[in-house]
Amino acid sequence: MTEVFPQKVYDVVVVGGGPAGLMASLCLTTYGFNILHIDERSHPTTAGRADGIQPRTIEVLRNIGGVSTSPIPGGPIAGQSPIAGGGVAKKMISQGVRVYEVAFWDPTATQKLARTSRAPSCPEFVDVVDNYTLLLHQGLIERAFLDEIEARRALLTDAFPTPRNGIFRPYTLLDCRTLPANASDPLGNTHPVQCVIEHGHSKAKHTIRSRYLLGCDGAKSHVRRCIAGGEVGDGEWKGAITMQGEATDIIWGVLDARVKTNFPDIKYKCLIHSKSEGSIMIIPREANLVRFYVQLQTTEGGQVVSIARDKATQDICIARAKKIFEPFELEFGYIDWFSVYQIGQRIASRYTLDHRIILGGDATHTHSPQAGQGMNISMLDMYSLAWKLNLVMKGLGKPEVLLPSYEHERRGVAEELLKFDSAYSRLFSGRGPDAKQLAGGVDADKFIQMFKQNAFFTSGCGAIYFANELNALPGARLLNGPHGRAFNPPGVKLVAGQRLTPGHVTRVADGNNVRLQQEVKMNGAFRIHVFAGDLVATKSALEGFAAFIDSPTSFFARYRPNPEVASSIVDGPAEVMNHDDHAKNTHTFNPFFTFLTIVGTHWYKWEIADLPSPLRLYRSHVYGDALFDHRVPEAGTNAPLHHKFGIDMQKGAIVVVRPDSYVGAIVELSEDGWLGLNDYFAGFLNEAPAKAKM
Amino acid sequence: MTEVFPQKVYDVVVVGGGPAGLMASLCLTTYGFNILHIDERSHPTTAGRADGIQPRTIEVLRNIGGVSTSPIPGGPIAGQSPIAGGGVAKKMISQGVRVYEVAFWDPTATQKLARTSRAPSCPEFVDVVDNYTLLLHQGLIERAFLDEIEARRALLTDAFPTPRNGIFRPYTLLDCRTLPANASDPLGNTHPVQCVIEHGHSKAKHTIRSRYLLGCDGAKSHVRRCIAGGEVGDGEWKGAITMQGEATDIIWGVLDARVKTNFPDIKYKCLIHSKSEGSIMIIPREANLVRFYVQLQTTEGGQVVSIARDKATQDICIARAKKIFEPFELEFGYIDWFSVYQIGQRIASRYTLDHRIILGGDATHTHSPQAGQGMNISMLDMYSLAWKLNLVMKGLGKPEVLLPSYEHERRGVAEELLKFDSAYSRLFSGRGPDAKQLAGGVDADKFIQMFKQNAFFTSGCGAIYFANELNALPGARLLNGPHGRAFNPPGVKLVAGQRLTPGHVTRVADGNNVRLQQEVKMNGAFRIHVFAGDLVATKSALEGFAAFIDSPTSFFARYRPNPEVASSIVDGPAEVMNHDDHAKNTHTFNPFFTFLTIVGTHWYKWEIADLPSPLRLYRSHVYGDALFDHRVPEAGTNAPLHHKFGIDMQKGAIVVVRPDSYVGAIVELSEDGWLGLNDYFAGFLNEAPAKAKM
Repeated sequence: MTEVFPQKVYDVVVVGGGPAGLMASLCLTTYGFNILHIDERSHPTTAGRADGIQPRTIEVLRNIGGVSTSPIPGGPIAGQSPIAGGGVAKKMISQGVRVYEVAFWDPTATQKLARTSRAPSCPEFVDVVDNYTLLLHQGLIERAFLDEIEARRALLTDAFPTPRNGIFRPYTLLDCRTLPANASDPLGNTHPVQCVIEHGHSKAKHTIRSRYLLGCDGAKSHVRRCIAGGEVGDGEWKGAITMQGEATDIIWGVLDARVKTNFPDIKYKCLIHSKSEGSIMIIPREANLVRFYVQLQTTEGGQVVSIARDKATQDICIARAKKIFEPFELEFGYIDWFSVYQIGQRIASRYTLDHRIILGGDATHTHSPQAGQGMNISMLDMYSLAWKLNLVMKGLGKPEVLLPSYEHERRGVAEELLKFDSAYSRLFSGRGPDAKQLAGGVDADKFIQMFKQNAFFTSGCGAIYFANELNALPGARLLNGPHGRAFNPPGVKLVAGQRLTPGHVTRVADGNNVRLQQEVKMNGAFRIHVFAGDLVATKSALEGFAAFIDSPTSFFARYRPNPEVASSIVDGPAEVMNHDDHAKNTHTFNPFFTFLTIVGTHWYKWEIADLPSPLRLYRSHVYGDALFDHRVPEAGTNAPLHHKFGIDMQKGAIVVVRPDSYVGAIVELSEDGWLGLNDYFAGFLNEAPAKAKM
Repeated sequence: MTEVFPQKVYDVVVVGGGPAGLMASLCLTTYGFNILHIDERSHPTTAGRADGIQPRTIEVLRNIGGVSTSPIPGGPIAGQSPIAGGGVAKKMISQGVRVYEVAFWDPTATQKLARTSRAPSCPEFVDVVDNYTLLLHQGLIERAFLDEIEARRALLTDAFPTPRNGIFRPYTLLDCRTLPANASDPLGNTHPVQCVIEHGHSKAKHTIRSRYLLGCDGAKSHVRRCIAGGEVGDGEWKGAITMQGEATDIIWGVLDARVKTNFPDIKYKCLIHSKSEGSIMIIPREANLVRFYVQLQTTEGGQVVSIARDKATQDICIARAKKIFEPFELEFGYIDWFSVYQIGQRIASRYTLDHRIILGGDATHTHSPQAGQGMNISMLDMYSLAWKLNLVMKGLGKPEVLLPSYEHERRGVAEELLKFDSAYSRLFSGRGPDAKQLAGGVDADKFIQMFKQNAFFTSGCGAIYFANELNALPGARLLNGPHGRAFNPPGVKLVAGQRLTPGHVTRVADGNNVRLQQEVKMNGAFRIHVFAGDLVATKSALEGFAAFIDSPTSFFARYRPNPEVASSIVDGPAEVMNHDDHAKNTHTFNPFFTFLTIVGTHWYKWEIADLPSPLRLYRSHVYGDALFDHRVPEAGTNAPLHHKFGIDMQKGAIVVVRPDSYVGAIVELSEDGWLGLNDYFAGFLNEAPAKAKM
């Protein structure tokens, strides 16, 4: 196979081939961009490393979907999305194992080690479809991403050649910078970022220009060091960006192994505290592997001391594990992976300096792996950034609003994680809040209580964003505007800045039972959910809204992409079966807004054709709300989702869901409401340059 | 690629590469046999033909599972099944579309055509997980089978070489016969079947010996003609086997096409009756195709007459469809497939003459395609036969009992189907029970009523088997035996001869929520479900049962396969994590029986180790019963599955499920009960020859 070399100009350069970089690459490829993705390793991960995928991440992966592999008789169908089904998520689910329950083992008055408590991994109050943690080694996760990226690149019409799976390896980043404006630089206005990369073997160097560069290159990020400048500090570079936080002296070993044991909960996630030998966490893994997190401490002169990091060998780790497991027997067989880490929490002082070179993932936050959060939050950093970059690069998003919102939203989540992780990992290691060894060993009760209290956060569903231009919450500028009072109608239980929670509905076009959350696959579009309640009561409001949408002043009419830019490989006009409407209404397609109409009146009692245009033209996104939901049994089959979301059947409501499936705004189904939406979108969208209008 | 030629001796020859033959091949490959599979077509189906997979078939396909594609770090794991997840079923589900709802369209007093009724495709009272019909063309279905057969063949240690996917094509069957006993024939005792096949191009002939030969070669079966002898009759061979039944003069066209229309239910299954132009059924299909079944009739001199079969062109079919659809518009685009059929029902007078050459699928029953049953029942014929052949070929099953039970059970289902189909297809064509044209056109009310009444049967869940040696029902010899009164304890709602209905349970070994039905993948084993109820109440009964199982007189000890025969590629000893038990108890493995213990007492309150051996050794088949089931809301999380199945918590029960997931016997959890099971298995199993005992 001929070697493929990088081009000179890309839309985006992604540095780092781990989960964060892969998520960036997958999303941006889906949005139709040309990506240079480099990694300094020669090969993808083959074992170990991160292994836990949390419920919210599974939900996101399901929404990313997969390229359909079905042959299409008669050739491709215009407007039919090539993305179908669960794709990446289903592949991972079929390869991994699930943790539904966590067991806590501690010394008791009568037993050296006993199960003292249990807890669901994802308790019932967390409203999520995949209510478990999925475990598989990082290599399998990366493989699923790589395959999907390759499948999606094949759908791009003008993709640059890349090596198989899209990553150039081994390539090291030598330098990156945003060039100052310079009239003689033809790329200066559009592609101000320049980086220099070097092939790991040939040492050939390439200078690349791009619009953006994403640093997903881990805790020791080259990108971060390039832009931060400065010098070596306490284990970290000091410069314009510093890593803030602290490390402890607590050392843990990590081991993926197959074992024989008479410990009954070997296939559970277990948090095991011995009386005086330290703690272990075990996690079941694919192929009968077990991951062991083993605290590496010993007792010297009556004092508990950590084993020095450079002396923490695999053999010592195994010996400590056997000791902590006593009185249960534990024999180690095949060892798949071994590593050592030191507990600490650090966060970058800034995620970017100029909103052109942007950091994410481990390059911005590091912490202990025990809570199973790192890879999840890193992937979701890039998932969150990508849709904003998409809008900006297509001339629709205001960069000065959208790009800062990335750090605003994601840093908030990272800080929350670090706070939790610091307390959790210390307590699990038998340390108090002051990091001193606890007198009686681990405070099991407190630890278990903390675990349970944090389940909402650790499921990923507790990653909440606060008021800003994108989240129409009290405190947002928008709510003081002329239509501010139309936001967040009383009783509605959905919250801007939080994810859209699940619900089953009937898709009226074909009568299928579907998950509303997953009906629009990640395509960069805002999902405008029109909850129409009782059609008799809302008829005139619905007609008003439809007329507004069709009017030239609506957000729908004003914010359209440059037509010469492919908007997303998932695009396609709303599927129209009615050929009269079809001929007349191609103007009703705008790839950045999808309308979903959910009607409370039983769907046997009305027709799609009864809905006003353009709502009825989104035929495959019209839903009936009559499927029993065990979370609202009192509603029976009488509009249970309206009931669950607290939407008044007499009034309806409009729920705007952002391209990352977070609720952005909830407004009344009234003129104030839709004018409020105009204000909402005006906060962060631009009309495309006149020459480029459709 | 070098051409592969057939060997001289096989376990089984399968003639016909359609769904029935593929099911036979897949099952028998899973059971470890060498199959010669031939088809006279050069290529698999590429379009059209059968397209509807019913709920029960999906359940079966899920149970067949799929070969895991995950790489196993550290190499294969002894005892770990290579079959995981949904395999064939998931592949088909990802490629097809679903029908949840059926719409009925008829002329009314005011409208030429109006929706007069709706019905769920699979109503709530049918207790099935996949409550829809799955639609995709037969080629995709065949492809999923072919891929899975190839993956499973790769796991066989002594498989003969075959072409890719396992089917020799194009090969025609010239002759087949069972040879009479002949002392000089070295294969006479073991491989009495001889067939002659001919390559379609080279005309090279091969004479093959086998133990069995299965005729899955369709309505015009060569196999049937070979063994029936005789001569041409009224469109059919007359001989030792005749096709009994009748044809009508009603002609239908079938068309797979993409259309533009303003008919609102184009993505539903619709049953459309026009006032005077005949009827249409439409079914949505993958890739925006629509299947049309179009009644081809015309009016001549005031009389409705069918269009002659040889004049039924695609153009006429399209013209009729447009006419029947009036006043809706219907434009045809890409046409994927077209065919014509004549309504009739026929069933073979015998399925086999000697229990060596055995017919199934369309070779034994033909009928109209509109009820979407044919392919399903054909596949399930072979699914049903394969496990019986497996037991017989491994020296364990009594051929004189098991092989006749195939025709007994499957003919019953086929007769039921023909009865339904005859009434249904005539009524749909506007004919009365006397096949005469109905005065007022179609009797819509009667038709809709019939459709709804038959949903249990058409879902596949109503395929019920009657009392015989395998189904311990009133009327079976067994129930008059010494322990007969222990069968079918009062209150139990499961019924021998019917499928095990679904239920969610918690797998105690790892705390996973799982579907009990799908916990043991198709591996030829009987699944002994021990419903243990309240452990306090059933303790001594459980211990008694366990002691019985361990005793040399139990069915478990007596019926074991010849150890030199691979029992199934899905085999593996019960997974044992407790290494003490593991070393001591390898004798507790018998690949033909799997124990599943379902405990009513909340699983937080006991340990797997509390259960008596050998039940506790089947660690990954011990379950807690505490997951809410909306079908028995009154039980809450308090043993809902015991409640649903009507099992007394104080007494427990043992439910034997056959390898095809039909309930075989239900007995008390008492000495009478397990001695009754000994009688049950003695009815159709043999002890393996002494020399071959383990």
